[in-house]
Amino acid sequence: MTNNSENLIKKYLSGDRRALARLISIIENEEDQGYQLLDKIYHRVGKAFRIGITGPPGAGKSTIVDSLTKIYRQQNKSVGIIAVDPTSPFTGGALLGDRIRMSDLFTDEGVFIRSMATRGNPGGLAQRTQEVADLLDGFGMDIIIFETVGVGQSELDIVGAADATVVVLVPESGDSIQAMKAGLMEIADIFVINKADREGADRTVLEIQQVLEFKEKKLSWQPPVLKTTANIGQGIKQVEKCLNDFLLFLKKSDLINQRLEQRMENYTRQIIRERILAEFWGADQERKFEQAIEQIVSKKQSPYLVSEQLIEEFLDKKNE
Amino acid sequence: MTNNSENLIKKYLSGDRRALARLISIIENEEDQGYQLLDKIYHRVGKAFRIGITGPPGAGKSTIVDSLTKIYRQQNKSVGIIAVDPTSPFTGGALLGDRIRMSDLFTDEGVFIRSMATRGNPGGLAQRTQEVADLLDGFGMDIIIFETVGVGQSELDIVGAADATVVVLVPESGDSIQAMKAGLMEIADIFVINKADREGADRTVLEIQQVLEFKEKKLSWQPPVLKTTANIGQGIKQVEKCLNDFLLFLKKSDLINQRLEQRMENYTRQIIRERILAEFWGADQERKFEQAIEQIVSKKQSPYLVSEQLIEEFLDKKNE
Repeated sequence: MTNNSENLIKKYLSGDRRALARLISIIENEEDQGYQLLDKIYHRVGKAFRIGITGPPGAGKSTIVDSLTKIYRQQNKSVGIIAVDPTSPFTGGALLGDRIRMSDLFTDEGVFIRSMATRGNPGGLAQRTQEVADLLDGFGMDIIIFETVGVGQSELDIVGAADATVVVLVPESGDSIQAMKAGLMEIADIFVINKADREGADRTVLEIQQVLEFKEKKLSWQPPVLKTTANIGQGIKQVEKCLNDFLLFLKKSDLINQRLEQRMENYTRQIIRERILAEFWGADQERKFEQAIEQIVSKKQSPYLVSEQLIEEFLDKKNE
Repeated sequence: MTNNSENLIKKYLSGDRRALARLISIIENEEDQGYQLLDKIYHRVGKAFRIGITGPPGAGKSTIVDSLTKIYRQQNKSVGIIAVDPTSPFTGGALLGDRIRMSDLFTDEGVFIRSMATRGNPGGLAQRTQEVADLLDGFGMDIIIFETVGVGQSELDIVGAADATVVVLVPESGDSIQAMKAGLMEIADIFVINKADREGADRTVLEIQQVLEFKEKKLSWQPPVLKTTANIGQGIKQVEKCLNDFLLFLKKSDLINQRLEQRMENYTRQIIRERILAEFWGADQERKFEQAIEQIVSKKQSPYLVSEQLIEEFLDKKNE
């Protein structure tokens, strides 16, 4: 590690928010020293309660995160928020509109908000969000909230790595069916029907409860189905209470350790995947690859044969 | 290659549908000889017109695929359909309900339908679908249709690998905003507003046209915004016409080769990723990994250090 890096870690460990922000940027930009830095802070990771909040676009997730954060702040708990915005693959930027509402939280020293964008590498993003969560956790945040649009697998992976997962839906018809299709029913520890002042809220609650009854139970925990009207703060206190109940349940049943072990396994597999590929592409393969693509497009070689040759060369060369 | 494999390829090349189905299963199950088999048929790949159809759940994509296929069949073109169903991560099965409607196509010799499921490895699925498309292409299918629920990045990757991408929306308010968020605006070559007999269809068409006007143009092709009522077949002929226009545009502007090159590049990168990881995990690393996870959970080592050590051991060992 360079002096600079050591200094950065020292500042971070002493509670310097700018050092935290800098470390997050290093991780987000996938700079070389990222893993060394994460290794140095790993002994501090593991105290935070990690909450995943997901659901279809427009369900009001940001408003719920906003209100929930204010409740935690009243309890004097610090909160780190990782908001994952689906990115347009062409513009490269995240849609930050939703976050503007949170501006009053931006000035709160006990809250740290980071928006992260999917940059065409969904697997990578799931890993990045975990790394940033580790940085927030090691920094001493009591609560970490992941917020994602929960329809793709990668978004599910992100919230699936939390201790507790809240699925937010709206009363519109067909929404619960969509949730089932997208795999949201299975990952939810708590359901929230937001915009509950709209027509059909009670019917949606019933629909979900019925589906839950017919499902094979994995846990002795039955996911509650709550109603909220987040834009006027209604029902959020109950969400916070259920999250706390679920945390107590996790601790009592030792599930919290099982989930941690599963999470660390997935996480380490991701790191291995990323690092071994970095080794591969770092080894002058990129130039050979460009030439091979021409062969493939002109049908002189298949992508299957080319891949095999490039990997063999890479593995042979490593021990010369 | 075994005699068995050679025999299978021979049957496939002679037009045996059962051999095609068997090869697809080999690819789907990720059996060892998959790549060798794909290498043998690669010289036949590249004639099909590949169409991606995506959009939110419930937009009527399956019905559109159904009607479109019937039009192609009237033109005596053979059609391969790859329908990607989001899978529940717990049950493991795909939701095949939508496909049941297509049963009249199942008995048509000129149509081959395959449902594929996301099994928790979205990156892998994008690759599998391309491999299956190659098999359908090499088999002589004139048209290949990928159908996905287009919200996650991996689903976008699948349809993004097509020659032409159709984005299907419904007139409900907010839908076009959701499409923009999910990156659908950028990948669409053609927009279809289905269920156009519902209120708000014309407004949705206008909204999308407005967004398209404000966008920086990547192509001299302006994506048309069509209205369909697919369940009564209305407007589908126009979709087919636009697809054909787009294909002519691609050919005239040489974009079809640029897209092919980009596709082959992404595809080969995916193959490399998968194979190098198979090499890694095949080399007795799984056992060491299990032990290392204990160290990680008990905080004796970080996942970052563990990954580095496992990769170093793997690369050193390869040339002993």
